[in-house]
Amino acid sequence: MERLTVHVDEKPAYDIVLAEDYEGLGKEIEDIGLGGKRFCIVTDTNVGIHYIEKIRTILEPRSRSVITFQFKAGEENKNLDVVKSLYETLIVGDFERGDVLVALGGGVVGDLTGFAAATYLRGIDFIQLPTSLLAMVDSSIGGKTGVDFSQYKNMVGAFHMPRLVYANVKTLDTLPDKELISGMGEIIKHGLIKDRAYLEWIEDNARNIRTRETSILIEMIKRSCEIKRGVVEKDPLEKGERALLNFGHTIGHAIEKTLNFKYLHGECVAFGMIFAGKLSAMKGLIGEDDYALICDVISRFPFPDLPEELDIFKVIKATKKDKKMSEGKIKFILLKSVGDAYIDKKITDEDMRLAMEAVYEELE
Amino acid sequence: MERLTVHVDEKPAYDIVLAEDYEGLGKEIEDIGLGGKRFCIVTDTNVGIHYIEKIRTILEPRSRSVITFQFKAGEENKNLDVVKSLYETLIVGDFERGDVLVALGGGVVGDLTGFAAATYLRGIDFIQLPTSLLAMVDSSIGGKTGVDFSQYKNMVGAFHMPRLVYANVKTLDTLPDKELISGMGEIIKHGLIKDRAYLEWIEDNARNIRTRETSILIEMIKRSCEIKRGVVEKDPLEKGERALLNFGHTIGHAIEKTLNFKYLHGECVAFGMIFAGKLSAMKGLIGEDDYALICDVISRFPFPDLPEELDIFKVIKATKKDKKMSEGKIKFILLKSVGDAYIDKKITDEDMRLAMEAVYEELE
Repeated sequence: MERLTVHVDEKPAYDIVLAEDYEGLGKEIEDIGLGGKRFCIVTDTNVGIHYIEKIRTILEPRSRSVITFQFKAGEENKNLDVVKSLYETLIVGDFERGDVLVALGGGVVGDLTGFAAATYLRGIDFIQLPTSLLAMVDSSIGGKTGVDFSQYKNMVGAFHMPRLVYANVKTLDTLPDKELISGMGEIIKHGLIKDRAYLEWIEDNARNIRTRETSILIEMIKRSCEIKRGVVEKDPLEKGERALLNFGHTIGHAIEKTLNFKYLHGECVAFGMIFAGKLSAMKGLIGEDDYALICDVISRFPFPDLPEELDIFKVIKATKKDKKMSEGKIKFILLKSVGDAYIDKKITDEDMRLAMEAVYEELE
Repeated sequence: MERLTVHVDEKPAYDIVLAEDYEGLGKEIEDIGLGGKRFCIVTDTNVGIHYIEKIRTILEPRSRSVITFQFKAGEENKNLDVVKSLYETLIVGDFERGDVLVALGGGVVGDLTGFAAATYLRGIDFIQLPTSLLAMVDSSIGGKTGVDFSQYKNMVGAFHMPRLVYANVKTLDTLPDKELISGMGEIIKHGLIKDRAYLEWIEDNARNIRTRETSILIEMIKRSCEIKRGVVEKDPLEKGERALLNFGHTIGHAIEKTLNFKYLHGECVAFGMIFAGKLSAMKGLIGEDDYALICDVISRFPFPDLPEELDIFKVIKATKKDKKMSEGKIKFILLKSVGDAYIDKKITDEDMRLAMEAVYEELE
């Protein structure tokens, strides 16, 4: 079992526990004073069938009551209507301020549950039990919660810290390949923005990661959690440095939206990182060999090919609706070197277009 | 012009400005660094016709753009559907994280606008321009935001601090009498829970308050703001002492709900304070003369008579859905003495019933 403590305002706020089963979960919940509360396990139809009864069995002897709320799996259900149904469930269950939501699932479940916890009775506790790689290394950490609204991802949300993140790495055994690879998008990003040695470790261990060797997965998740923790501790409300985590996301998000969510989030982040890497090289910040390294690491994992018929102008237009916009300017994340990212507010539509065109030309 | 600074975590967080016009508003907005942003003035159909153009004129030369969002006046519109319309308006207006909502109106406008600000893009700035007495002394201060959900008041919400509260006391000139009296419910409460001398000042000045003498209103609003500020500074997230502000509210809220919002909030708080005062006397905490003082201060203002046919059992049942419930127990606020309230977790249904029955018996 591995443990990391996340601090908010320099005070210990919650622990991330990486384990190979759920055996330790009951004690963790009691240790943070949540024994005897009401719990609502929130999950989706993909994850629920595997783990909901297991979690219920762990919570029941330690709780006042346990209820469950399942919704249909899929990003299209991360919306306010599902949140309203969850509120109804909590009201019927007499949930009070001291009670607890349990997010059992991937990023969609975690984001939606966290938002309901942030807003029910002006905020109740929640814990994260991430079951996807992306949720373990990214969305479960740092307190970003939210739902999609009117075609826009996470347009409505809040910052609300979990009380505990408990990841049973064995749940990754049943994760579809595509989802595992999607998670690798964020993990490669961690190396690129903060730690070149980690990026090279990922390159070297790509085979063992793909075959899901538990000890390798745990080491990788721990290193990624450490990087994400470091960034969110410095900037919990995304006023500055936290934007570095947006590397690959400005164009990535825009592709995701332009192609109507045909590709998974981490897949689009990988596309976005190739373009942002190229742009960094074209600006003379990194060498072409560094750009080749980025492409090589990504190629070690079976990400989909770049979409053949991408409307570059549409993608650029879609970047304008990014939440990280500041006074009409995009905060674009570039690399000073591999392992060292920075925020650039001077990137123009022309810069983006040239970088995307250059990548496509090289493919021909 | 009077000014109070509200602190959060012992740091100055925002100012409450009491003025007799809107002349100083532009400078205040610039002083806190909001000049040049996009502004959305949110108001209702009652208040909009009086002040929206005035506020627009002040904001326009200091902003990137000014848009407006008006909704139909009334508590029944403080709901998620109206919030969703507001989100749409902000999306169409290209509102970004740095932009600002302006809540121009009473408590309904302030609560709803604050909640939209708390959740749009995971939180943007908002300022409060309260135009009702209740909003000036109560709902605009302390960062509680929210909307009603499925018959329950403020069931969905968040804590989100305004950047500025600017009250033009002259807006009270056009406030309907009933609304002014409703505000007096919260003001009398401030004296009862914290400051006997202030309660006696209210008793002595009742006539000038009723005739809306500006200097008296300003003094009163300032003293009430000071009391509310003192409580919320000690306990911004309502984990303890802030519950004292709930004096009169446990039964008051329950009456409000049981009678389907026939009475205004502050009117129900006045009813609730009579019952909570009686209960304090029956418990031997305060004397019958103190209870008589409470009734006397309330009687100096034209509050409605206690509802003739109140179903006490229904009211008691409705208290169970109070947000301040803790492990199934109500946190009832009682008076140790006039001007000194405390939280009592041992009040039973029987206690509430006997107090309500005793008040009604005295009326006969």
